[in-house]
Amino acid sequence: MARADRCSMTSSSSSSSAAAAAAANPLLDADTLAAYTSACQGVSGPKAHPRGKQVLDSLMKHLHAFINEVELTNAEWLAACELLNRSGKMSDEKRDEMILISDILGVESLVDTLSHERALKQTGTASSTDGAEESSKATVSAILGPFYRENAPEYPMGADIVLDHSIKSQDGNKGLTCYLYGTVTSAKTGRPIDNARIDVWHTGPNGFYEQQDPDQPDYNYRGRFNTAADGRYSFRCLVPTAYPIPYDGGAGDILKLLDRSPMRPAHIHFLIDAPGHKQLVTQIFDRQCKYLGADAVFADKSDLTVDFVEPRTQEAKDFGVDRQLCFDIRLVPDEK
Amino acid sequence: MARADRCSMTSSSSSSSAAAAAAANPLLDADTLAAYTSACQGVSGPKAHPRGKQVLDSLMKHLHAFINEVELTNAEWLAACELLNRSGKMSDEKRDEMILISDILGVESLVDTLSHERALKQTGTASSTDGAEESSKATVSAILGPFYRENAPEYPMGADIVLDHSIKSQDGNKGLTCYLYGTVTSAKTGRPIDNARIDVWHTGPNGFYEQQDPDQPDYNYRGRFNTAADGRYSFRCLVPTAYPIPYDGGAGDILKLLDRSPMRPAHIHFLIDAPGHKQLVTQIFDRQCKYLGADAVFADKSDLTVDFVEPRTQEAKDFGVDRQLCFDIRLVPDEK
Repeated sequence: MARADRCSMTSSSSSSSAAAAAAANPLLDADTLAAYTSACQGVSGPKAHPRGKQVLDSLMKHLHAFINEVELTNAEWLAACELLNRSGKMSDEKRDEMILISDILGVESLVDTLSHERALKQTGTASSTDGAEESSKATVSAILGPFYRENAPEYPMGADIVLDHSIKSQDGNKGLTCYLYGTVTSAKTGRPIDNARIDVWHTGPNGFYEQQDPDQPDYNYRGRFNTAADGRYSFRCLVPTAYPIPYDGGAGDILKLLDRSPMRPAHIHFLIDAPGHKQLVTQIFDRQCKYLGADAVFADKSDLTVDFVEPRTQEAKDFGVDRQLCFDIRLVPDEK
Repeated sequence: MARADRCSMTSSSSSSSAAAAAAANPLLDADTLAAYTSACQGVSGPKAHPRGKQVLDSLMKHLHAFINEVELTNAEWLAACELLNRSGKMSDEKRDEMILISDILGVESLVDTLSHERALKQTGTASSTDGAEESSKATVSAILGPFYRENAPEYPMGADIVLDHSIKSQDGNKGLTCYLYGTVTSAKTGRPIDNARIDVWHTGPNGFYEQQDPDQPDYNYRGRFNTAADGRYSFRCLVPTAYPIPYDGGAGDILKLLDRSPMRPAHIHFLIDAPGHKQLVTQIFDRQCKYLGADAVFADKSDLTVDFVEPRTQEAKDFGVDRQLCFDIRLVPDEK
């Protein structure tokens, strides 16, 4: 049947009256709701996947509580189904609208934070918010996002990941060049880590990753670096640019409904794999960016906010870059 | 980027260890979680749609609580996004997989119950679970489901909605014929309702609605009837057949994970529109059906369970049907 049929049937349920009602007592009391949820959970068979059942039972409990709390109307539920169907249809190899929707609802960032907290807990590593010595605090994580690509070109230290310096922003800005360097150490021992593999990626001054932009060379603004025994890494890139997430799908509809900005504050992505250590996925954010604190996907963290400064080191000066940044990375060990 | 890339990166997060951890303290304490949720809610702009913000703020709160409670892993979150994208892609005019997923999680039935409770509350009408006189209790609602079609043929009283009596179940069963009748009254006054429009629909003995089955005539097992001043309606149909919901999409994946049956207990759908009364969408369920109490979409209710009995009334005997059923319908008035 056509969706419109169902919507038209429910048009008499006014949203505003539902909103007003929800402010008072919920339509179902806690016991009635719990009995309903319990009945829904109770039909699982003996061969249910234990973890699957744990997750879905909890999902039903919280979904039902949400529905009762806001007194979700038929029209609203149908609108949500329509939005999700439409978002599924527009997802492909280059775009994942369902990930984007979960991102703007704070899901991916929370899942990522839990993953990092789990690693800290399992290994007894200090988190950045503990009162521990700086050198024993693990670098906090941030979400991977949908633009990572495997098999980025491997470069020697100091290499420039900008394959085309002619890419400009809409107002003609070519961006500032930057010398970015640091040391990868163990948050457990404080010692440098040999052979840590670092993937980095960012957008052009036009706000597009290379796979979104037919005018950019393949793997532009991407590179892979391996640390030596001193744990050091260095490369040249651009000071990053803020950009909007795609705004023409289900995620955009939600952002518009909430009068929210689609902008992500300027950032550079990192993914670090090192022997004997947990993989770290993170991002660094430019303190100068006006969108800090209002990241559309809630990935920005104060511990990951950095200052791109004028060149001070000899290397940065020799490269003739506009800015430099030192970003040291402390990894969580694999075991306690 | 390809989804597989992201999944492979998170394969080290074992589901079983996450399940074990979730049994203990959650990774984030209540205050930390509340601060995160509050930050996510706080970025809405001044022009946010008030009801949209109320619904989405509550959704984020409950989603975040769910994620923290089960310590959802990156791999699980990605699997959920993949399932939803895939389900969106398979939805079309004839199939709505997102509705089906929400149905098997108990969402549609809960939304429907709230809608009915809201109508009762607004109009001061007794519910079927109150201790009120039978004649003043409103008939309870049940979900519409995805197979309603508008503009079913209008028939005179007593008409047969079975346009093709040759449709058989897989084991050759042609089903039992039934004379179904009753009176539509007001739950407020108890008086018969003139000109109530009743839509009915059910599947064939093969478990398929006509739009799912190219071998059935258009609008088979569907009809529309209008009551006269006495509020009476009557028609001939089949004693309904249990059938499985579609099992080859995201909803089927969830049912399999939970070792749940895809079966819906045997039922007949009703949709009633009457002047001065709230629209009623409901279903009646055959008490003999072995799937009662384990409805894949949680629509079955004891108040809607009926007995198809051997013909007793003269009309039923005259029609030569196998069974008869009296189903009286009491509607909620539009106003208090």
